[in-house]
Amino acid sequence: MAARQLETCFSPALYEASLHVGSIVVVIDIFRATSAICTAFENGVKSIIPVAGVEEAREYKERGYLVAAERDGFVLDFADFGNSPFNFTREAIEGKTIVYSTTNGTGIIKKASSAYAIIIASYLNITAVNGWLAGQDRDVVLFCAGWKNRFNLEDTICAGALAERLMNSGLYTTNCDSTHAALDLWSLAKDDLHGYTQKVAQRSRLREKGLDDCISFCLRHDFTKKIPVIKDGILVDII
Amino acid sequence: MAARQLETCFSPALYEASLHVGSIVVVIDIFRATSAICTAFENGVKSIIPVAGVEEAREYKERGYLVAAERDGFVLDFADFGNSPFNFTREAIEGKTIVYSTTNGTGIIKKASSAYAIIIASYLNITAVNGWLAGQDRDVVLFCAGWKNRFNLEDTICAGALAERLMNSGLYTTNCDSTHAALDLWSLAKDDLHGYTQKVAQRSRLREKGLDDCISFCLRHDFTKKIPVIKDGILVDII
Repeated sequence: MAARQLETCFSPALYEASLHVGSIVVVIDIFRATSAICTAFENGVKSIIPVAGVEEAREYKERGYLVAAERDGFVLDFADFGNSPFNFTREAIEGKTIVYSTTNGTGIIKKASSAYAIIIASYLNITAVNGWLAGQDRDVVLFCAGWKNRFNLEDTICAGALAERLMNSGLYTTNCDSTHAALDLWSLAKDDLHGYTQKVAQRSRLREKGLDDCISFCLRHDFTKKIPVIKDGILVDII
Repeated sequence: MAARQLETCFSPALYEASLHVGSIVVVIDIFRATSAICTAFENGVKSIIPVAGVEEAREYKERGYLVAAERDGFVLDFADFGNSPFNFTREAIEGKTIVYSTTNGTGIIKKASSAYAIIIASYLNITAVNGWLAGQDRDVVLFCAGWKNRFNLEDTICAGALAERLMNSGLYTTNCDSTHAALDLWSLAKDDLHGYTQKVAQRSRLREKGLDDCISFCLRHDFTKKIPVIKDGILVDII
């Protein structure tokens, strides 16, 4: 059996779809989208419809869906809640299909459409993701969502955490500089993840808007065994 | 005086020209373009004309210019030499204007045209670059050339080396995750730069083509005090 290739992509602007046909794409956007999505599935959401635009989100609202929609950290007036993981409580979402407004996320789903599968990862489900990937004989791309197409540290570090587990399994090989960088940055960060995270730009952005209350939660490991996956453009539980 | 901003860009695909109007752009492509260019200026080249295409390079050759032109590591049949720094000897180039074929480089020059200045850096002139930047009251962008628009480790590490000096000067501030990552990766690499560089993908690529003889030279610090700068599309000595 040929070793599976492990690659890491630091930004949607760097994703090369033609290289990853048939791979598994692992989307990482820990502050806050993929952490919020993992939380929603742990709390029993049935499915999540990612939508790109405010108008599309509004139309779903008018049709009776629960809608999570923010722009620049502020909850939109018609929305039921913002994008914090703390909003997705069992009381609010269990058994329901909700709509999640995410310009970045829908762009990634489109870009990665030639992949075998697109799954959602964060620290909250990292052990589950690692275990599931072991059972799939596929190349893997760790796809950091970045911020406005820019490199970001928090997703890179989380990619490094997952890359370390995958490489330690002996199932993967890599000749990808981004993966080496992610592994090395994780090695620097892992003994004090909260401390290291002080310097990331997104943390300052969230703090300025009073939205940084979920940072510690987003760094928590293994809150859930759920793995959200894209099926026909909609997020569902992989099981 | 407001602190100058220091930013790092990991790939031409991530460069946002509108953010860097009036900044100084420092191009880093150590294996091998910017190392070769620094070497050429140390050895007395008068100027270097960067050209994008093979045909353009061929036309210059027909007009009597010395031409350095490679594609995928192989010297083109009409060219005088390839892109290794070892080709740019004093005997070959002193006092001359040469043509350097570089698809990546010309793309970067175009992208960064709104900058105040575009200068060329490598380990070979790192102290000179640091010293010159200190005298310029400008924001700085460390622009890693990457490889085929991808992130690469060797340019990131060199950016981190320069970023460390700039940050230590107290003249700069940064809220840029890429700069933090470059600084951290440099901190891991600096005590054994040759060893760390073993894992970079470009090193394997050069080795496979027998072009890795210049790696040690490209990691050498302060071979020259020259700082090549773009003026009217052409590389000249900044002095």
